[in-house]
Formats: sequence, C-alpha cells, structure tokens
Amino acid sequence: MKQLKGIAASSGIAIAKAYQLVAPELTYTKKTIDNPEAEITRLDNAVEISKRELEKIKEHTLNELGAEHAEIFSAHLLVLSDPELINPIKDKITNEKTVAEAALEEVSSMFIDMFENMDNEYMRERAADIRDVTKRVLAHLLGVSFPNPALIDEEVIVIAEDLTPSDTAQLNRQFVKGFATDIGGRTSHSAIMARSLEIPAVVGTSEVTKSVSQDELVIIDGIDGHVIINPSDEQLKEYKKKQEEFEKQKALWAELKDEPTFTSDGEQIELVGNIGTPEDAQGVINNGGEGVGLYRTEFLYMGKSEMPSEEEQFEAYKSVLEQMGDKPVVVRTLDVGGDKELPYLDLPKEMNPFLGFRAIRYCLENEQVFRPQLRALLRASVYGNLKIMFPMIATLEEFRKAKAILLDEKENLRNEGHEVSDTIEVGIMVEIPSTAVIAKQFAKEVDFFSIGTNDLIQYTMAADRMNEQVSYLYQPYHPAILNLVNNVIEAAHSEGKWAGMCGEMAGDPIAIPILLGLGLDEFSMSATSILPARTQLKGISKKEMASYKDKLLSMSTAEEVVAFVKEKTQ
Amino acid sequence: MKQLKGIAASSGIAIAKAYQLVAPELTYTKKTIDNPEAEITRLDNAVEISKRELEKIKEHTLNELGAEHAEIFSAHLLVLSDPELINPIKDKITNEKTVAEAALEEVSSMFIDMFENMDNEYMRERAADIRDVTKRVLAHLLGVSFPNPALIDEEVIVIAEDLTPSDTAQLNRQFVKGFATDIGGRTSHSAIMARSLEIPAVVGTSEVTKSVSQDELVIIDGIDGHVIINPSDEQLKEYKKKQEEFEKQKALWAELKDEPTFTSDGEQIELVGNIGTPEDAQGVINNGGEGVGLYRTEFLYMGKSEMPSEEEQFEAYKSVLEQMGDKPVVVRTLDVGGDKELPYLDLPKEMNPFLGFRAIRYCLENEQVFRPQLRALLRASVYGNLKIMFPMIATLEEFRKAKAILLDEKENLRNEGHEVSDTIEVGIMVEIPSTAVIAKQFAKEVDFFSIGTNDLIQYTMAADRMNEQVSYLYQPYHPAILNLVNNVIEAAHSEGKWAGMCGEMAGDPIAIPILLGLGLDEFSMSATSILPARTQLKGISKKEMASYKDKLLSMSTAEEVVAFVKEKTQ
Repeated sequence: MKQLKGIAASSGIAIAKAYQLVAPELTYTKKTIDNPEAEITRLDNAVEISKRELEKIKEHTLNELGAEHAEIFSAHLLVLSDPELINPIKDKITNEKTVAEAALEEVSSMFIDMFENMDNEYMRERAADIRDVTKRVLAHLLGVSFPNPALIDEEVIVIAEDLTPSDTAQLNRQFVKGFATDIGGRTSHSAIMARSLEIPAVVGTSEVTKSVSQDELVIIDGIDGHVIINPSDEQLKEYKKKQEEFEKQKALWAELKDEPTFTSDGEQIELVGNIGTPEDAQGVINNGGEGVGLYRTEFLYMGKSEMPSEEEQFEAYKSVLEQMGDKPVVVRTLDVGGDKELPYLDLPKEMNPFLGFRAIRYCLENEQVFRPQLRALLRASVYGNLKIMFPMIATLEEFRKAKAILLDEKENLRNEGHEVSDTIEVGIMVEIPSTAVIAKQFAKEVDFFSIGTNDLIQYTMAADRMNEQVSYLYQPYHPAILNLVNNVIEAAHSEGKWAGMCGEMAGDPIAIPILLGLGLDEFSMSATSILPARTQLKGISKKEMASYKDKLLSMSTAEEVVAFVKEKTQ
Repeated sequence: MKQLKGIAASSGIAIAKAYQLVAPELTYTKKTIDNPEAEITRLDNAVEISKRELEKIKEHTLNELGAEHAEIFSAHLLVLSDPELINPIKDKITNEKTVAEAALEEVSSMFIDMFENMDNEYMRERAADIRDVTKRVLAHLLGVSFPNPALIDEEVIVIAEDLTPSDTAQLNRQFVKGFATDIGGRTSHSAIMARSLEIPAVVGTSEVTKSVSQDELVIIDGIDGHVIINPSDEQLKEYKKKQEEFEKQKALWAELKDEPTFTSDGEQIELVGNIGTPEDAQGVINNGGEGVGLYRTEFLYMGKSEMPSEEEQFEAYKSVLEQMGDKPVVVRTLDVGGDKELPYLDLPKEMNPFLGFRAIRYCLENEQVFRPQLRALLRASVYGNLKIMFPMIATLEEFRKAKAILLDEKENLRNEGHEVSDTIEVGIMVEIPSTAVIAKQFAKEVDFFSIGTNDLIQYTMAADRMNEQVSYLYQPYHPAILNLVNNVIEAAHSEGKWAGMCGEMAGDPIAIPILLGLGLDEFSMSATSILPARTQLKGISKKEMASYKDKLLSMSTAEEVVAFVKEKTQ
C-alpha cells in the first residue's frame, strides 16, 4: 500500500487497475551495414505497419470521440507520407550505409530541433507530431510494441508523466475510469480534459509513474487529491463507500437537472456552461445548464492548415443554437494570439504575448478574418437565442468599431437576401482592468458584460498565470478583483444591463457566495460544475451575502476574504 | 532641400553638418593562401591596432562621460584578448590556409550565433560586442577606417539607423549637437539618452540615413519632430529664429531654477527628478529639481559580471544623498527581470517577462540579493533625506514582508554599531492595477505612494508598451488610468500620506494640468522637464483644474480627455 498526494483535478472516485502510459525503451546500436536496399525495405515495412496502426486508431477515435479528436492522427499519417522527411532518411541509409534506426532518428531529430526552435506554437506541435511518429516507427523497426491508449478495451486507470493533447485525444471514456499524472496543475491541459470527460483525476503527484506497476490496483480520489496504490481491504471498503456517497451526491445533483436555480431566499440565478465545440453543447444540457455563457470559437480555427470558411462556421454556430433551443448562447468572437497561435494567420512573434496583438486587436486589423465570422454568426442567429461578445476590449473605441463592422455585415447580409435576427444582444468580455474600471461608461453602450476572470486576474495582478514562479499572485479573492467585479456589476445594473462571469472563478465554491452577494446575474462554468453550483446556491441567502459586501470590499488581503467566507458559509 | 517628419524625442533646435554613423563596406574575397604565418601576422597587427584604438576611445570616454560609459570599451578589449576567440581564428588560418578576413568572420559568426540564440539579454549583448569588435578588426585588415563617434572633434549632427547603447556611450556632448535616426520611438534608448544628454533629437524618420549625405547641412527640430536637409536660406533664417526663441525660453526657465513651484492660485507643488546614476544627481540640481523622486538602482547592477557589493552600493547611495543635501531622495529597490536581465542573478526565461518574476517578487525570494541593498541604503540614510520605495507591489503581504526585512536589517545594523536614520519613509510604487484599486487599504500601512505610470498603463490596458502593434493602447489619458490615479491620490490623502508620480506621464504637458486637478503632491520627471513644468504650473489654477475632476473621470475615451484639457488650458 502506498498513498500519494496530488492536485484534485476532476472530481469523483475511480478504482481500477493501472495502465502505464509510458513509451517503451527504444535502444539500438548504430552500425554500418552492407546492404542498404534491405535496410530501406525494413524502413518501408516499419512505416507501413505504423500507417496501418494509425489508420486503425484514427477510425476508432473518429467513432468513439468524433472528428476533432481524430485529427491528430491525420497529422501523424501526413508526417509518414511526407517525402521531405522520408527521402532524407533513405538517402542517409544509402550514403552512410547506416542502420535504418539511426538514419530515422538523426533525420527526425534535425526536423524536431528545427521546428522546436521556431518558437511558434504550431511548429512546436509539428515537432511533437514528428517525435510521436518517430517513436512509433522506431518501435516497429525494433519489433517492440508501442502503447496505443485508443485501443484500451478494459477498465483501467491511466498513469502517465503528463498527458499530451495527443494522449487525451485517444482516451476512451468507456474504459478509462480515471487518471493520475506526475506533473500539471488544476488548469493544465490534462486537468481540463479530465473535467470535460467527467472522469476523476489527480495531477501533479510528482512520482506516480515511479510508484505504480502495470496492472496494480489503484484508487483515484479526485475529490481530495489522493492516489492509493495497492489499497488494503479496509481502504478499498472506505473508498467504495466514498464512491457511493459521491454517486449519491451526483444523483442528488441530477435531481436538480431540470430545475431553475434559486437561492435560499428565493432569488433566481442563471447557471450556464462554457463550451469549445458544438459537441460540448450536449454536456451542458445533460448537466442542467440553462444556456451557454461562453462559446470559445477559436477551437474551430485550431489544428487546421487554413481558416475555416464562413459556411463551416455557420454550420457550427447553427448546430449549437439548435441544440440549445431557446436557451441563450453567448458566442465569443475569435480570441487568438497570446498562447493561441494559428499558422495561417501570420501572428507576430512577441516578447509578451499576453500583452500583445490578440483577440479583438487582431480582428479589427484583419477584417478578412473577422467579417466571415460575424457573417456566419449573423446567419446562424435565426436558429436560436444568440448573443455576441467581443474579447479583450480595452477601450470604447474598440467596441464601437467592432459593433460597426457587425452592423455593416448585418446590412450586407440582408441586402443579399439572408434572414438575420433583430434581437441579438452585443456585449463584451471584461478581462482588461481598464474596462472594469470604467465599466460605467461602457454600460451605456453594451448590452451585457461577461467577466473573464482568468485574464482579468492576471492583468490586475500583473502575473502570468502560466508562470509557476508568480502563480501565488493569481488570487481570485484578492480584494482588488472583488472591487473590480463589483464595479462591473454595479455599472451594468445602473444601466439596466446584465453582468455574467465566464472565468474559472464562476464555478468556484468559495467565490460563488461572494459573487452572489455582489449581485452577479449569470454564472458560466464547466458543465460538470453546474449541478454542484445549483445545489450550493440553494443553501445560501443572497440577502445575507449582500450584507457582507462592504466588509469584503474593504478587506486587505485574499486570505482575509477566504477566512471570512468560510466562516459565514459553513 | 528635403524635409522629413519623425518623432520629437528631445527638445530644441540644432543646426550643423551631418555625420553619417554608418559602418563601412567590409567586403573581401575568400581565397586560399600559401603563407599562413604571414596571414597570422596580418591578423595580429589588425588586432593590435584595434586594441590601441579602443584604449584611446575608452580613455576619452572616461574623461568626457565617466566610468559607466567607458565600460563598453573594456568589454570590447576583453573580447580582443580572449584566446577562446583568437586561437580558433589562427587555427583556421593554419589548417584551412584561408585569408585572415574569412577566418575571423567565420569564427566570430559562430560565437555570435551561439550567444544570440541563448535568448538571454546579457549573452545577446556579448554577441553585439563580438559583432562590433569583428567589424573593427575586419576594417583594419582591409585598411578602411572605422567610424569612432567618440573621436568626433567638430560640431555635427549624428545620422544613424538607430543608436545602440555602445554608440550613445561614445557621443561627445560638446560636438554632437543633435541626432536623427531611422527607427525608434519616444521611449526608445536613443530618445531617452538624447533627453539625458540634453541634445535635440528626432527619431523614427524611416529614411534619414538614405536622405542625408556626409557633411550636408542639417536642421534638427526636436520641438516639432522635423529634420530639414540642405535647408534654403529662408529656412535657415526661420530655424535660427526658432532656435533663439527656444534658447530664450530656456533662459526664462532657468530664471525659475531656484524658485519653488507655485500654481497661478498659489498652491505649492513639488517637482523632482528621476535619476539612474549618482552622476545624474547634478543634472537634477542644475535643472532646479527639488529632490529625487526616483533613483533607479538597477543601473548599479547592470553591465557587470557580479553583484555590486554592499560597500559599492553604500558609496553610490551616499553620494546621491550628499549631493542632494536636505532635499528628499526616493530610492527604488532593485527592479530586475522583465526587460532587465542580469547574468549573475540567474533569472528565469519567461514567456511573458512583463508579467513575471521580477522586482520585489524576485527580491523577496532572494534575500541574499535584497538584504545587502537594504543594508547599504540604511547605512547611507544618515547622509541625507532618504525615502525607500519597493517596486511591483501587488499585495499587502508583499509590502509587509519587504518592510519586515528592512526593519530586521535596521536592527542588525544597529547591533553592529552602525548609525541609521530614524525618519526614513517607506513607500511603494503603484504600478500594478490591484494596488491602485485597493490603495485605500495600502494607505493605512505605507508612508507614501509613487505612481509608476509606464507599467501601470501597460498592465491596465493589457498592452506591452514595447510592442508596436499594440502601442496605440498605451494611453496615459484613458479615463481608466485617470480613475486609478485619482483613487491612489484620494487614498493617500485620506490617511494623511502623500502621493507622487514617477512615470513619463508626470512630465507631460497634457497630463500635468489633469494631475494637478486630481491633487498629485509630487511630480518626478526627467531633469530637463522640470523647468518647463514649473513654468507651465505657474500658469494653471489648481482650483480650476480640480473643478473639472468629476467631468474628466466620467469621460469615455482618451480622445475626449485630451480635447477637453487642450480647450481648458489654451
């Protein structure tokens, strides 16, 4: 029996045997060979087997997880068919009379180094693709098997150093009951994927890969962040009980699925979900969401070699709107740049990308990118209850310009004979301090605010939330954040508008009572947080929380805020 | 006659002939040679001449501009004496029987590439040193002369693509009457140096190097940002008149040198200067400064291979305090990281350095760096009127920690028998939005605020001020900035503390009336801005500007603010 502590990344208890997702040892001896033709045939065979394997995984993923997840394998297949990679390997075998393994690895390394040093997210992903594919071909050259998590067909808990997007794309929800990793935090890719797949996960354990053997029994406690390896009977009993309680809790939550959200003093609150793809909409509905508070459209643009067409976008937006029926759907226009680069958009390399040319800044300067999205949204508007939201607004001029372009396209579409809804609300993300500070001025012109706390916190604290050395400054409960949030809500209400929040904070059990007291109208969160939030809100009085407002806003530190809220809501 | 428009980087009119600061053509034919020994002798000679030249320039710079400016030439001399660079060149000549020019350039290129790709400011500077030195030696190998701006001995206007720190270090104020560059903005290195040297400059003209020939007559209009090449007699007359008026204006300013600063309605304002080195203190005194509002101590740490000792720091702080007598001197503790890296401090490479591990964040985690500075400051405190200020404070916890360390060192020093002043005020830079938002909470604990607008603006607008594509968002007059500044001033006054400002904004003629109306107590600016500001303040009524406060704070855009202020102060 061994117990590890990590970060609770996705709630729930999972009990199953371990599946070590680790690459096999791929060692070989570099030596000169006599027969280059035979060596090239060996290479061709290994490439061929790898291709067949990838085709199989791709098809499997397509059926189980959908087209988006399967795309990574198309990329891998592309690498294996690229003569610019394969020919130099063959040349090397012929000219240097070296074993295929060495030729493959040396040529691949060159490309990997080159792409990695390009300091461009897309190219680094290409480097990762080549690295994955090289390992697979090398494994087949050496006759060892390569782990294919997509092909897992029994219940397991996946143990890995970290899960790459390529790994998680392959996980089959039916069999993967949970996972534990060595590295990562609550907002790492692995953690977000776990919550979206609704499987328990513990990340950042430091040493789980070293502590677990293949097929050993493992318990993942995604509620408190524990991993128990080879549990005693007593522990097994205890955790089965905890699992039952969690399931019971989930069942209780599920009872609230079709209920509206009321506080203990009878105030109605709107609970909606954040989504990234049309497929995610179903998750929001299944989890009792009353709409979509944030549709991140950039996923439509990612992992592609060219911009999605107006038509392609129209279909995606229409699909979400139709799925949600008359429920509100707030769509955020393209938010690229920062940590999200796209190869075909020619985004600049920047010293401080988080303070750079991104989102609305980029779109206003690149109307050939912005207008097709707005046209697609406007055309889709007749299929549901659409609200459009612009990201990274720092000045009123930016909002006015963006809105003018929207209205221009509306007129264009009508002239072209398209139907466009007349009741589309147009609002903004409040994620830049300047906008939070003069929210009163903005409230006169926008239809709504949605506070994006992830960015608002990092700019307000001047601390990159991805940088571990300053992550202690990522403080959602810092009184400055509460004051800015309050300012936005008061500004909205003073002009009869509504204010929502779509950052991580909106689903946080400590933040929820505070935000309720400040008068937030709409809480947008991960689908799986909606029912717990509804349950929590049933037990809190808005009037009581509002009575603490002045006290909270005049506190000095985040620590004081947390202590006070805990005391009052226990 | 030709006229170019650029950015007015440093005020005044200069008329003189052009000195083109451009590297000569350094082309050669790469060929095999018979006598490597002779080639090595040629190399040795060229290195020797270069060294003698550098010694001469170094001495000249030392006498004219001081030790700090001369340091770059020590670095260049070090490069030329480095066997790790020189021996491989000689080996290449011997082994490959190639001309010295090719061997020199190929070996240097390798080092330059290596250092440049290290992505570390210090190493990139080393790459720049090697590049400079290589060009010099190459010129001597080819028998062409290399421009040595340090040796200019007649009145000229320097024309360059851009001025590197190495170039500006060599400029002799006596002969260089002004300069014009192709690139750069108001806050570029060239521009800041021009203001500190008090010579007229126009930067960012795009094409001045292509438009001017050596020795052609040039007028630099640093007031309105024009460069006139080969002026007509009429223009010459016109600009001589403008020059006279400017000199007259300067004389008027100079009359106010020893006067206190009063507004038209008799309110006294404190005008102080920003400095980077003890030598700069004299400039503040000569320009009528009533103290130092910001002493940037990081210059003490820069361009060195190891940390300055406590003793070295003590001498620097003592020198400034003694020069300023009983006038206040606000010293900012070490602000490194961000765009300021130091080789010996092992600062991390970050994706968003402006949102990273810098200034007080670094110092609190590295007390072995922080404590010696605090000790040096405390020991120097008995020599003048010292105030200590911590940079990049985002939370009250940080201030409390920093102050506790300061008090701890105070006690240590006293136990060691040192004298320490008992009246040192301890304050903070307000440059992070969170701190501006909850200034009221901070005001209970700090002795003063100094608003650092350069950073405050970039964080509040989430726009990197060094990034040209988002520089339009660097808006000092954005109503959000005015609201935050107002919040800080009101918070200070509510607790009987004072609030100053030490960003570029404090010396800006549009901002000054606004800041006066908001009640700012202390304005800290470049030395040369002090007398113009004093003159301007004499003509403005504080009461009148205060009456516009509510109107200004509720405006929607920076444009509105500027238009209003211009109308009211014309």
